[in-house]
Order: sequence, then C-alpha cells, then structure tokens
Amino acid sequence: MRILVANVNTTGSMTAAIAESARSAASPGTEIVGITPRFGADSCEGNFESYLAAIAVMDAITRYEGHYDAVIQAGYGEHGREGLQELLDVPVVDITEAAASTAMYLGHKYSVVTTLDRTVPLIEDRLKLAGLDSRCASVRASGLGVLELESDPERAVEAIVAQSRAAVEQDRAEVICLGCGGMAELEERVSAATGVPIVDGVRAAVTIAEGLVRMGLTTSKVRTYAPPRPKAVTGWPIAD
Amino acid sequence: MRILVANVNTTGSMTAAIAESARSAASPGTEIVGITPRFGADSCEGNFESYLAAIAVMDAITRYEGHYDAVIQAGYGEHGREGLQELLDVPVVDITEAAASTAMYLGHKYSVVTTLDRTVPLIEDRLKLAGLDSRCASVRASGLGVLELESDPERAVEAIVAQSRAAVEQDRAEVICLGCGGMAELEERVSAATGVPIVDGVRAAVTIAEGLVRMGLTTSKVRTYAPPRPKAVTGWPIAD
Amino acid sequence: MRILVANVNTTGSMTAAIAESARSAASPGTEIVGITPRFGADSCEGNFESYLAAIAVMDAITRYEGHYDAVIQAGYGEHGREGLQELLDVPVVDITEAAASTAMYLGHKYSVVTTLDRTVPLIEDRLKLAGLDSRCASVRASGLGVLELESDPERAVEAIVAQSRAAVEQDRAEVICLGCGGMAELEERVSAATGVPIVDGVRAAVTIAEGLVRMGLTTSKVRTYAPPRPKAVTGWPIAD
Amino acid sequence: MRILVANVNTTGSMTAAIAESARSAASPGTEIVGITPRFGADSCEGNFESYLAAIAVMDAITRYEGHYDAVIQAGYGEHGREGLQELLDVPVVDITEAAASTAMYLGHKYSVVTTLDRTVPLIEDRLKLAGLDSRCASVRASGLGVLELESDPERAVEAIVAQSRAAVEQDRAEVICLGCGGMAELEERVSAATGVPIVDGVRAAVTIAEGLVRMGLTTSKVRTYAPPRPKAVTGWPIAD
Amino acid sequence: MRILVANVNTTGSMTAAIAESARSAASPGTEIVGITPRFGADSCEGNFESYLAAIAVMDAITRYEGHYDAVIQAGYGEHGREGLQELLDVPVVDITEAAASTAMYLGHKYSVVTTLDRTVPLIEDRLKLAGLDSRCASVRASGLGVLELESDPERAVEAIVAQSRAAVEQDRAEVICLGCGGMAELEERVSAATGVPIVDGVRAAVTIAEGLVRMGLTTSKVRTYAPPRPKAVTGWPIAD
Amino acid sequence: MRILVANVNTTGSMTAAIAESARSAASPGTEIVGITPRFGADSCEGNFESYLAAIAVMDAITRYEGHYDAVIQAGYGEHGREGLQELLDVPVVDITEAAASTAMYLGHKYSVVTTLDRTVPLIEDRLKLAGLDSRCASVRASGLGVLELESDPERAVEAIVAQSRAAVEQDRAEVICLGCGGMAELEERVSAATGVPIVDGVRAAVTIAEGLVRMGLTTSKVRTYAPPRPKAVTGWPIAD
Repeated sequence: MRILVANVNTTGSMTAAIAESARSAASPGTEIVGITPRFGADSCEGNFESYLAAIAVMDAITRYEGHYDAVIQAGYGEHGREGLQELLDVPVVDITEAAASTAMYLGHKYSVVTTLDRTVPLIEDRLKLAGLDSRCASVRASGLGVLELESDPERAVEAIVAQSRAAVEQDRAEVICLGCGGMAELEERVSAATGVPIVDGVRAAVTIAEGLVRMGLTTSKVRTYAPPRPKAVTGWPIAD
Repeated sequence: MRILVANVNTTGSMTAAIAESARSAASPGTEIVGITPRFGADSCEGNFESYLAAIAVMDAITRYEGHYDAVIQAGYGEHGREGLQELLDVPVVDITEAAASTAMYLGHKYSVVTTLDRTVPLIEDRLKLAGLDSRCASVRASGLGVLELESDPERAVEAIVAQSRAAVEQDRAEVICLGCGGMAELEERVSAATGVPIVDGVRAAVTIAEGLVRMGLTTSKVRTYAPPRPKAVTGWPIAD
Repeated sequence: MRILVANVNTTGSMTAAIAESARSAASPGTEIVGITPRFGADSCEGNFESYLAAIAVMDAITRYEGHYDAVIQAGYGEHGREGLQELLDVPVVDITEAAASTAMYLGHKYSVVTTLDRTVPLIEDRLKLAGLDSRCASVRASGLGVLELESDPERAVEAIVAQSRAAVEQDRAEVICLGCGGMAELEERVSAATGVPIVDGVRAAVTIAEGLVRMGLTTSKVRTYAPPRPKAVTGWPIAD
Repeated sequence: MRILVANVNTTGSMTAAIAESARSAASPGTEIVGITPRFGADSCEGNFESYLAAIAVMDAITRYEGHYDAVIQAGYGEHGREGLQELLDVPVVDITEAAASTAMYLGHKYSVVTTLDRTVPLIEDRLKLAGLDSRCASVRASGLGVLELESDPERAVEAIVAQSRAAVEQDRAEVICLGCGGMAELEERVSAATGVPIVDGVRAAVTIAEGLVRMGLTTSKVRTYAPPRPKAVTGWPIAD
Repeated sequence: MRILVANVNTTGSMTAAIAESARSAASPGTEIVGITPRFGADSCEGNFESYLAAIAVMDAITRYEGHYDAVIQAGYGEHGREGLQELLDVPVVDITEAAASTAMYLGHKYSVVTTLDRTVPLIEDRLKLAGLDSRCASVRASGLGVLELESDPERAVEAIVAQSRAAVEQDRAEVICLGCGGMAELEERVSAATGVPIVDGVRAAVTIAEGLVRMGLTTSKVRTYAPPRPKAVTGWPIAD
Repeated sequence: MRILVANVNTTGSMTAAIAESARSAASPGTEIVGITPRFGADSCEGNFESYLAAIAVMDAITRYEGHYDAVIQAGYGEHGREGLQELLDVPVVDITEAAASTAMYLGHKYSVVTTLDRTVPLIEDRLKLAGLDSRCASVRASGLGVLELESDPERAVEAIVAQSRAAVEQDRAEVICLGCGGMAELEERVSAATGVPIVDGVRAAVTIAEGLVRMGLTTSKVRTYAPPRPKAVTGWPIAD
C-alpha cells in the first residue's frame, strides 16, 4: 500500500520530518511518500496561506504520476480536504480530524496545543465543521511559529509543555493532540509532563488511512464529494 | 464610496448581472465595480472549484489598482472570505452571510434555495461556521446548475419557485434567501408564489458593506484576520 | 426615509443621546425621530422593567401619527421586538441583534460589554433566541447602572474599558459591542485601549434598517409575525 | 398552602377551567386561587397579546392582597415569567416549562400539541430559553384558536388527536404535552388514541409548585431575578 | 403512596440517611422505603461501580415484594435509570435529573457540587443525555470521596462550601445542586455561605415522584422504555 | 497483537460471526479472539439487557487469562464501554463509535441502519455522548430483531436495504453504518442498492484498535477512566 503524505508548506525539511513520523506508524508493507507543494508559503499560519496551500496540495497530488492508495493532508487546521475528496477516488484523511477522532477513543475530553494564537480559530473551525468539537476541551497556542519549532526546539518544547499542562489541569483535557509536528522528542516530553496520552495527527492519520484501504472503503461520491462536473476551468492544471 | 463586487467564476456575463443587481441596492454616490477572476471555473459548483475561486478572487482583488472601500465576495456557499479579510484593510462581506443575517431581521426562520444538490452541504457548512445556522429552516436545491439559470430561465424559475414553496409550507421558513443570482424576474416570481420576503445576497451585501463603511468599521486585526506574517511565499502573486 | 428610534426608558435626555447617535450613522435624506415611552422605568435594568418597556414602546410607536419607514428598538437585551413586528408593516430592528450581526462581519468572535451584572442573562437570552450567540465570546458587565453612565462618565468609561480589555485578552473577542449607549467618547476610548473595532448598536441598527427599506424588504407576515387576530383586547390602546 | 394560578387572558370561564384543572392535581390542604388579568386579550395567540398579558399578570398578581405561597403562570408559550420572578419572593412556575420538565421523566422525547400554527414559534422559543428543548421532538398545531376549543370541542379534539398521533408516529414523541387547556375530556381521548402519557401543563405546574414550597425553596435573588432596583417608574402600578 | 428510594451503594447507613432526607420532603401519607443493593461497591465513584450498581438496583427493586407507586434512584450521575424504566410500570426518577429540573425553576443557571473530580464527567454526561445541561453553569468537585463525607464532615462541608461559592461567583450559578447527600447540615451551611437556593436531589426527586403519581402518569411504553421482549436471559434474576 | 472482540449477547453463533468479520479486517499478525459473556440475554435490544451486558462483558474480559492488546465491545448502541476503560490498561473500542468516526472520513453525513425501532434511542444517545452525532443524518430501524437477521436473512436484507435507501435519498446520508452484524452478504447488497460506502462497526473497530496499539496509545488514566479506587465491592468478581 502506498500513502501520499502532503505537507501544506513548501519547506522540504518539514516534509521529510512529516514523512518520517508517518513511517513510524505505518504497517509493514506500507510505503509513505512525502509530497511538497510546488508553491505556497514556507509555513502555513493563517487563512490566506492555508487557502493557497489547499490549491497547492491539490496541484501536487494530481501531478503525482504513480499509483497510490490514500492521501493524508498533513497540515493542522488547514483548508482543502474537501477539494481533494472531490478530485480523488482514494480516501483522504486530514490530520486535524485524525488526531481528534483518535483522541476521543482515549479520554473523555481532549485539547489541541498548536503554534500561534492566530491559528487557534482555524483549528476550532475545522473541528466544528468536522463535527469533532463537542469533546474538545480547548485549543491552546504556544505562541511560537511553525519554523521556530525547528530553529529553537528547546524553547518550543517548554512552551508546548506549559500549555499542555494547563489544558489538563485547567481545561480538564485527558488527552493532548499536538497541532504542530516534526519533533520526535516532543511527544515524550509532553507525555512525561502531563501523564496523558499524546496524539500526533500524522501518525493517527496513517493508521486511519491504512484502515480505510484495508476495508476497501473510500469517499462517497453520491453528493458532496462527487467529481467536479465537466466544465471550462481556466488556469488548471496550474502551469509550470 | 467604491465597492468591489467579486464574481467567483470566470463568466463575464454573470459578473455583469451581479454588478447590476448590486447597483440596484446601492446608495447614491456608491460606485459598484464588478470583478471577474482571471482563472477558475466558469461556474462554481463544488469544493475544488470553490477553493480555486478563493485564490482567484484574492488574486483579482489584490491586483485591482484603484482605491476601494469594501469588497463583496459574490458566490453562494464559497470558500475564501477569511483569506480576503487577512489581505485587506477594508471590510469584506460574503453574500451567503449577508443574505442570512438580513433574513433573520424579517422572519423567525429562513430557508436558502440554491442550484445543485451537491452545493447544499457547502452552504450549510458556511452558515454553520458563520454561526448563522440556528434559524435556518433548510437549504434546498432546485436541481439546476448555475449556467442553466441563464440558458433555460423559465424552467429554472419554476424549479426554484417549487422549492421555495416547499420551504415555506413544509420547513416553516418565513423568508427565502436566493442562493443563485442574476435574474431580476426571479425575486418577484418567488415572492408572488410564497408570500414571503425574498432576500438576494448580493443586494443585502451591498447594504451591509455600505453600513460598515459609513460607520468607519473594518475587519479586526488582533488575531484571526491579522495580515499574513512576513515570509517566503512561492508563486504569489500568481504569474500572468 | 424616516426612522423612529424608540428609547426603552422614560429618560428624555437618553432619547436625545440615542437619536443623536443614530443621526451620526444615517445616510443623507434619512430623518431620525427619537421616541420616548409615556410610561415605564427611567432606566431598564431587569425583566420587570423590560416587559413594561415592551408594552410602552408598542404604545408609543402605535400612537405616532406621522409616516415612517422603519423602527429601531434602542434598548440592549430588552423584550418586545416580536410584538412590534406583529403590529407594524415596516421593518423593526433591535439594537442587541444589530450590534451582534454587525460584529460578526468584523471578527471571529465578539463580546458585549454592558452595565449591570443582572442584565447579562437578559442579553445572553436575546442573543440565543436571535440565533446570534454562537460567536459571542462573552457578555461582561461594568457594574455601573445605566444612569451612572451619565452622572459619572469618567468612572463608567474606565470600568467599560477594563471589561473590554478582559474580553479581548481572556475571552478572545476580536470585536466589542457596547451594550450601553449615549457617549460619543466611549467608542474612541475603548477602541484605543483594545485595538479592536467597537460596534454601537444604535448606529448599526440605523444602517440595517436603511438597508432593508432600500431593498423594499419588511417583516414576513405568513406566520410568527402576522398581525394580531381580530379579538377583544381590554385596556388597549392604553388610556392617557 | 395557597397557590395563585394566573390565566393570561381575560376570559373568566377559562380561568375557572384552569383553576378546576389545577385543583384536580393539588394535594389536600392546597388552595387554588384563579386569577384573571384586568386587561389584555380574551385569548393569547401571538407576541403582542403575550407581552400585554405579561404585564397584566404582573399587575394582577401584585394587586392580590392575601397571602400566597406560589404562583403559576398558566399560559402556553407566553412571555413574562422572568418579570414575576423579580417581583415576587415566592416560587413562580410557568406551565410550558412544567409540562416539558414533567414529560422528560416519562419518555425519551416529547411533543407539544398546541392551537394555532402562529404560536408554535413562541413555544419553541420559550423551551429554548428554558433549556428544555433538546428532547422536544416537535411542536405541532391543531390549527384551531384558543376560543374554538370552547365553541366547537368535538372538532378541536379531533384535530388535536390527529396531531398527537402524528407526533408519536412521525416525530417519535413518547409523551404529549397539551399546549392548550380547559377540557377534561381531551387528555383521555388523546391518550386513548396514541397510547402515550399526556401531560397537562397546569396540573404539572401545581405539583412542581407544591414541591418547591414543601422544600422551602424559592427564586434565587443573587442576580437575574433580584428585585427591581429602586427607581422612578411612571405608570406603575397601572391605574384602575 | 409508597416510594422506594434505592441507594446505589451497599452502605446501609447511607441508605438510612437518604431515606431520612426523602422523608423530610414527603407529603403526609407518603411512605418512604429505603432500598440497599445486595451487591456492588460501598460507594459509587466511577463507571465500573456505577454499571454494577445499575444492575444491583434493578436486582433489588425487582426483588422487592410489596406494592409501590414510584422508584427513586438515589445516586448522583449514575447509570441505570433507563433499565428500571423498562422493567417497571411505575414512574422512575433519577436524583441527578430531579435536582437539575428543580434548580431550573429557581435561577437562570445552576451548578452541581459533587465529591470526587473523577465523577464530574459522569454527571456531565447524565445531564447531557437528559437534555438538562444547557443551563448548567458547571459541575465542580470538592475532592473528597463519598465516605469521607461521613468520616470527616467538617472538612467535607468546608470544601463543598468553597466550591459552591466559586460556582456562584465565577461560573455565575444562581442555584447549587448538591451532588452528594446524607448531611442535613450541609444545605444550611452552603446556603448561608452563598445566599443561593440549595437543591438536594433526593428531596427534589420525592416531590417529582409524588407529583407524577398524583397525576396518574407513568413511563411511556411505546418505544424506548417498552418492557424487555420475551427472550432467554441467562443469570437473571441474579442468584442469592 | 491479540484483540479480544466481545459479543454483548450470549449467542455463540453471533460471537463466531463477529469474530469472523473482525478477522476479515485484521492485519497479518493480528489474532482475533471472540468472547461470549457467561450471562445476559441471547440478544441485546434495550436498556435492561444492555446494562446486564455491560457487566457481563466486564466479567468476561476480566476473566480472560491470556495476554491481549486491545478490546472491542461489539454491540451496537450498548452501555458499558466506560467501565471497561477503567478496568483495563489496553485500549477499548466501541463499535458504535468506530463505525461513526470511520463514516465521517467518507462522506458529509452518515446514517445508521439498525434492527428494532426501540434501539434507535440507545444508538442516538451513545452517539451524542461520544460527540459523534452532529454529522449523523438519521438512525433508522429495519423493524426486525437481532435474531431474525439469522433466521430470515432474505427478509432482513430487504428491510435493511429499504431503510438505507431512504437514509440516502431522504435524510441525505452519504455513508451507511450497519448497526447489526454477522452477514457478509449484507454490505454488498446495501452498497449495490445505494451506491454509498457501507461501514461495518466491527471491522472499523479492528482497524482503530490496531492503530492505537501500533502507536502505543491507550486510555488516559488521569481522571474519568482512572482505575477504580480500592474499596469493598460485594459480589464481584461474579461467582461461577
């Protein structure tokens, strides 16, 4: 089985880290292929960048020439999953939703800890649309941007640990979803500090995608995610 | 005051019709400028097309070189409004929301009557995110595509009238929002058939945008809709 | 166009201040007429007073002998709007709702800052019934009564600024609706202290009422707001 | 123990019927006193009439000179209960709420069957505000006015039976609340036709009011229902 | 009238205290019979114990050989009420629900103060299922176990008073439901400290059960709570 | 990896069918062990039977002497999952929730088609508690009991197909969860008749349980699902 894991930003090192994380959860025999969009922001931290990423991911996936069995959209709180579902016949799993639906098997309430304060409403909105918000205790921000996770990991970990602890103690979360990825060390540290299970969206998405493929299930095409009607579309596919 | 009214599809005749409709609700002294995206689908009827339109509208608006006081995104149930709010300093009004918030001043519950069945969930989702869904009695589809409204207007009107009547009688709507535009005749016919007020989103959006401008109000920039952070964005602005 | 702006209390100076505020948002050619009820409390701060005001406003409006195009009920969190809608053929706009629907165009969440703690539940209930509560971050009280706004404006402003700041920082509001009126200075001060847009309900209601009139829209009469059935009503109209 | 049962309309025969119904549920030693407002409509079927009734009931209750232990507001879906709670020290029970909270002990979902279609939204709104709506399967109308229940009882019973049956079979109600009173025969007929428990709001309210009194509980006065602040109130008490 | 009041744990002294409390709210002529399960935990503080109690209460009630008119399940936030409703023809009242529906007649919002932190989600879930959660301001825990209420009453009272005060001041509760029983002194102390009405679930349940019996109402048998279908059930009734 | 799949009724042939279904979705290397309770009903179709099953499943699982990595509770809409989570250190997955969370990756809305009408509210309640109800279009019943699925499969299939079709066409479901198991043929027939993906709860639960184990995740023990406190529990473990 081959699963495409699409980064939503153009930073190749993040694609590599995401793919690495995906591989750590994959079954034997599952091949993970990391996909980096050809255009867009080097980190996605808001609606404009996220909308651009939505199109860039659709562009990158539809350009992929090999066979694949499922697609993971590996951006936390990002737009676009519904468009992929229309364009593709294979299952599409968004990591925001994968983390949430997984966390709900582990505790009564979960919280999400993410990077910047400004992305909190995007995550809240995605969870609301997905109907996965009623057991969400809180979405909290560490205050550090996506790329700072890479440049100053120690400070990032500390800020995330602090917010995770507050989520458990004040918001009554029993599980933490990490809304920011790429650091193996992070899960361990947050788990040790809080004593609760830590869910990584990318890894959760891999297990869900594998499960769907194994059951032979894919996106329903009867209404919302039917293929686009045949029509004139200017500027698509997007030129090189 | 100048208001840009952005069509979400590339069909120029629809831009003209939308701008015409906008003008019919504008105050003296308000100039309406219709904007047609440079790329995208000739009609928006699903998520892929809508995400592409989101970017195309942002592209078209940010390319506009003159001064303007507000922007209306004139697509029913479409993605993208939040991105425009980040990029612009002037108020942005989405017609799905404008129709709903206007309808709520006129009756206890409202329904939306739109074109294709597949766009119903998009509209429901936009209303849910906007927090304008709790008094929405139903979103109903006439079963006719956007362009069929132009090619076979009589059949379109009949189908829309039938669904509007059902919304009032079965779903207990007291107001109808027309989730499809461009026909002066439509409002009159639906109103005559149902006896309820008919809200056109484009016209409603004009009055709301004018009001915001007159009060000197624009998008809050403290969190969700702050300008994008300075960063490397590949492929933007989109090349000619 | 003539719009009647009904104060809900019997204090004439507040009617004047409200009308003044309304005029500052009105289009050229719109005449604002302030209406003071003939009976009721000199300030509305609870359910008994608000119910009495509901009837007093209906009394005052139905006694008004000139022509008018719309009515604004200028009390925050008050009862009665639905009764006016039954009695009148012109649009009726409540300022609690006008402030909320306007704020929702400006930020992801809004808060209301009002006077006394005891009026918070009234405002929450009106927003809930109006279906405008899901993006309300909080309703906060300054702890000062309606008339203290007039008697000790400096202290009132400070208390309102403090609550507004808390709404933005703690409750994550991105817009503030002022649930208490009559002070031009207030908006400016709160805006400066918080950096977010400030919505005044009276001014917002004027722009919405004007918009409805311009679009030729008025209250739906098919069910909830149909005119009262012909029947014996003792004690109405209320004797001089 | 003495309980005042306030009719919301001015029709004395309905007050008598309501009091009779109340007595049939009262414990030995409980005295029921029927109260008829001095002004208002001879039947309450809409917001204007209901707001007037709110004030008329407050007027009638505060004029009552004897001692009493609790008050029942015996109008279905009417305004005003919150005002009484501010003015009085004894418990106040609204029959719309009493019927609902009682029905919730008897089945998984309940429906309300009322008189006119136009009162359905009033009942829905009262249940929503009371937080008793989530197990309400439907509010259905028989299409007959309040006074027709008295003038053509056979036709009224048939229409109510038909709607009750539809509520059980189509809306999955397991209990019916009768949102219209004064006919002993009604409960029996509806119960026989549907096989489900029938809750009469007046009788339910009597048992709840008695319970509150017996437990020594009354309205909380710390915030929402604190007594009105001392202030100038013109036109109250209402002149003879 | 005879009402069975079923303790959910096996501690006889708690059954006695519960029955005593029940008697203090009963009408003259109502006999209260305390029921102690034959098996289960000596205090119920979690799901395993609560599920076991559910079966133990059904066992104990169906073994009771005399006549009775209603059953009260006297455990806060416990499972099982729906099972009793299927097995019995008489009304069944759960104290968690009785406290909540009673509190809702007394203030705009109520809070529950219970024992251990781990039982908070159980209570929240029962209120959610019962549709009585929307006016619940908070469920707070004193941090003391059920049996500590008996062994160190002074410390228990202090902790409960502290949480009740926080509920009123921070969560805006206007009524407190005590989610832990058996101490006459408790209500008085909490009421004195907070100034709000205190609802004891057992006493509230008695008044509701009496009311249902007096009205001749019992559980609807048309769907959810129909008697179990005839079938092979191994191990039931549970052997001595 | 070994997963225990617990039937909730005592019918061994159903355990075998459930285990068979589980195996069809398991990865190579996963061993499925079917568990049949020692007591309870031969089919679970209501609350009494379901509460008994809850205890019987806890009894059976805690008696199992070998090692295992996860537990699946294979009853649709049944009580008990929370108790297992307290008692066990390994992940527990309920099939009602597994079907729902899986369906939500495949379409905008899903419906559940189950056996008897009386079990519909149990399923609705479990979905509500799980926070997985907001995208549930409907829960429909075929009207046939659990054991009739085995005795008259053809009639059962027809009834289930009819309800599934209605769910897709009338309720706008895009995915069907089969709330009744044990027939390989069923999925195929329903899928052919409706054109939508069919989710079997048992198979979905296997993929989710495997994923949790592979990620090293298990139930959070910080609050709701902490192990029972040490205390006297009479009658547990249940005697042979």
